[in-house]
Amino acid sequence: MRQAPLERFYSVIPAGGVGSRLWPLSRADAPKFLHDLTGSGQTLLRDTWDRLAPLSGEQRIMVVTGRAHRAAVEAQLPELTDENIVLESEPRDSTAAIGLAAAILERREPGVIIGSFAADHVISGTTLFREAVTSAVAAADAGYIATIGITPTEPAVGFGYIECGEELEIPGARHASAVSSFVEKPDLDTARTYLEGGRHLWNAGMFIARADRLLEELARTKPELHAGLVELAAEWDDPATRGPAVDRIWPGLEKIAIDYSVAEPAAERGRLAVIRGHFQWDDVGDFASLAKLNTAGRSGELAILGENARVLADAASGIVVSRADRVITLIGVRDIVVVDTPDALLVTTSEHAQRVKAVVDALRLGGSSDVL
Amino acid sequence: MRQAPLERFYSVIPAGGVGSRLWPLSRADAPKFLHDLTGSGQTLLRDTWDRLAPLSGEQRIMVVTGRAHRAAVEAQLPELTDENIVLESEPRDSTAAIGLAAAILERREPGVIIGSFAADHVISGTTLFREAVTSAVAAADAGYIATIGITPTEPAVGFGYIECGEELEIPGARHASAVSSFVEKPDLDTARTYLEGGRHLWNAGMFIARADRLLEELARTKPELHAGLVELAAEWDDPATRGPAVDRIWPGLEKIAIDYSVAEPAAERGRLAVIRGHFQWDDVGDFASLAKLNTAGRSGELAILGENARVLADAASGIVVSRADRVITLIGVRDIVVVDTPDALLVTTSEHAQRVKAVVDALRLGGSSDVL
Repeated sequence: MRQAPLERFYSVIPAGGVGSRLWPLSRADAPKFLHDLTGSGQTLLRDTWDRLAPLSGEQRIMVVTGRAHRAAVEAQLPELTDENIVLESEPRDSTAAIGLAAAILERREPGVIIGSFAADHVISGTTLFREAVTSAVAAADAGYIATIGITPTEPAVGFGYIECGEELEIPGARHASAVSSFVEKPDLDTARTYLEGGRHLWNAGMFIARADRLLEELARTKPELHAGLVELAAEWDDPATRGPAVDRIWPGLEKIAIDYSVAEPAAERGRLAVIRGHFQWDDVGDFASLAKLNTAGRSGELAILGENARVLADAASGIVVSRADRVITLIGVRDIVVVDTPDALLVTTSEHAQRVKAVVDALRLGGSSDVL
Repeated sequence: MRQAPLERFYSVIPAGGVGSRLWPLSRADAPKFLHDLTGSGQTLLRDTWDRLAPLSGEQRIMVVTGRAHRAAVEAQLPELTDENIVLESEPRDSTAAIGLAAAILERREPGVIIGSFAADHVISGTTLFREAVTSAVAAADAGYIATIGITPTEPAVGFGYIECGEELEIPGARHASAVSSFVEKPDLDTARTYLEGGRHLWNAGMFIARADRLLEELARTKPELHAGLVELAAEWDDPATRGPAVDRIWPGLEKIAIDYSVAEPAAERGRLAVIRGHFQWDDVGDFASLAKLNTAGRSGELAILGENARVLADAASGIVVSRADRVITLIGVRDIVVVDTPDALLVTTSEHAQRVKAVVDALRLGGSSDVL
């Protein structure tokens, strides 16, 4: 008898992006997923692991990360075995990362269902999360590429949205719909109509699919990329051939987000199912959302991050991140963002938090890579 | 034949105040007068010395400062002789500081005219300054307590004002008037009427008088304080008696600003003359004025202080003071004040710059004196 879907489930955690919009907290050598951004006392990566382990089992979580982060990742996840860590020699975007995991796991275990979850998002409501994943796994078992969309609680302009189409009747999958379209970050008025309409969900970048189905979609849209990944996966589990194969294949793989290579094309062909998730989710994309997260969404309050922060605030709101051992004094600054690290200081406002990435680019061009 | 008035002139520089409103730039061990706040390449104290030396001669400048600052002051002013430095064991406000200088100098040189000028103000227009001092010295020679008032160029609310009375005809003293009243920092509407009326000058805290006249005024208003200063001065120039006299007398002297002990009472008795100064002057009382000073008063610009400042600004105005070796990034912050030092960081706005002093007090009460 075939195993129940959740028994064939494997979690994949791509731990890649630096999180430039959270500079100077996030750095090339200390990316966002290695930070505690919620005051939980552990990193976002560890939070992600702890959320997934009860679903797939801790022996069935694969982490795809950069070679430079190997030691830090292994320190966070001592349970992670060598066979479950995939090291990238250089970043090639999410299709290569998740596609390689899919190809490796499908070779090892045909019929495996994989679920990919970012290493640096914040989720609360574990039970609701598990329910959504369980539904998504059922949809995956039925042949869909599944994603989990988050029910909006406000007209957010910092997220992409998924427009739900007709409801899908899939055994074991509650709250499943077809997807009419993916939409990029909207303006505020559009986001308000989405919130009122009730048909749009936040795109949380979670993809759950049978590995063979995911590879099949990819073969259709990006045959060269697919071929490269399958070829690399064939050499992966032999220590003698993996290294040369990586050197030969990886640098030439197309850089493309899995949203464009798999999810959107599958949606157009009616092969994407979205599960409506009711848990709280945030991608903590910038300091404005970090501030909101740490003041429980209340404006006019000041969030303070930093274990030994010495902050004196007089009529101040926003967020202060203290990573240098200094007294920080704020007077009469509203919605301020102050990030204090030993070699770099950022002062901006919630309103301008999205522009941090552009400034990081300017610093790189300006020869200040030492602080990036 | 009696010497010409300017030949009897002695400059006195009280170098006392920390400048709390400029914390964390100004500190107990690095007060405002030891900073270069104009980008001139030298400290305000040295600027003050250089401004006065052509008037009184560098052998005739007395500096009154705290014992803790002796080494720093002497490093700034290598020309300063031992007999011209008066060290306070503890601060006792400006009447004690200037009164002691007056009493010492009057003993050494009866008939001396002294002029007291703060160590931490910024002045440009040296020729106009010298003209004003020369007039003030002439008024002092004629028996007046003289002060120099600055012709306002804007409705400043951060300064006290001197209201001019009738013009005074004093040989050698141009633009001299009696003083109708001293007024504290006004509100903006009042400051506007002062500016339009043309009869109010900024109180720059400059006092010029014959030492015997100044002491005579003080004897009338504060006889105990006067007696203590005269007694201390009598012991001053004997190394054997100075120390014990300081220990005995100094701690008991009343703390009072010379404005209240001498200037205002003299004004009421028609014995104060104000000379209208046309030079540019600023007491650099807070970061808002420091910002203005370093952007030539243009709003919407960003002043950057710090020799090796690495500042990246995107849509930012105000002032950033860089005293720690860090990259400072400002995005979308207007009229901001960022002061970055190795152990303390201040973020506020020009509008709230006056509140820095209150925060310094709060830090002291809160046990953070290590950064004050």
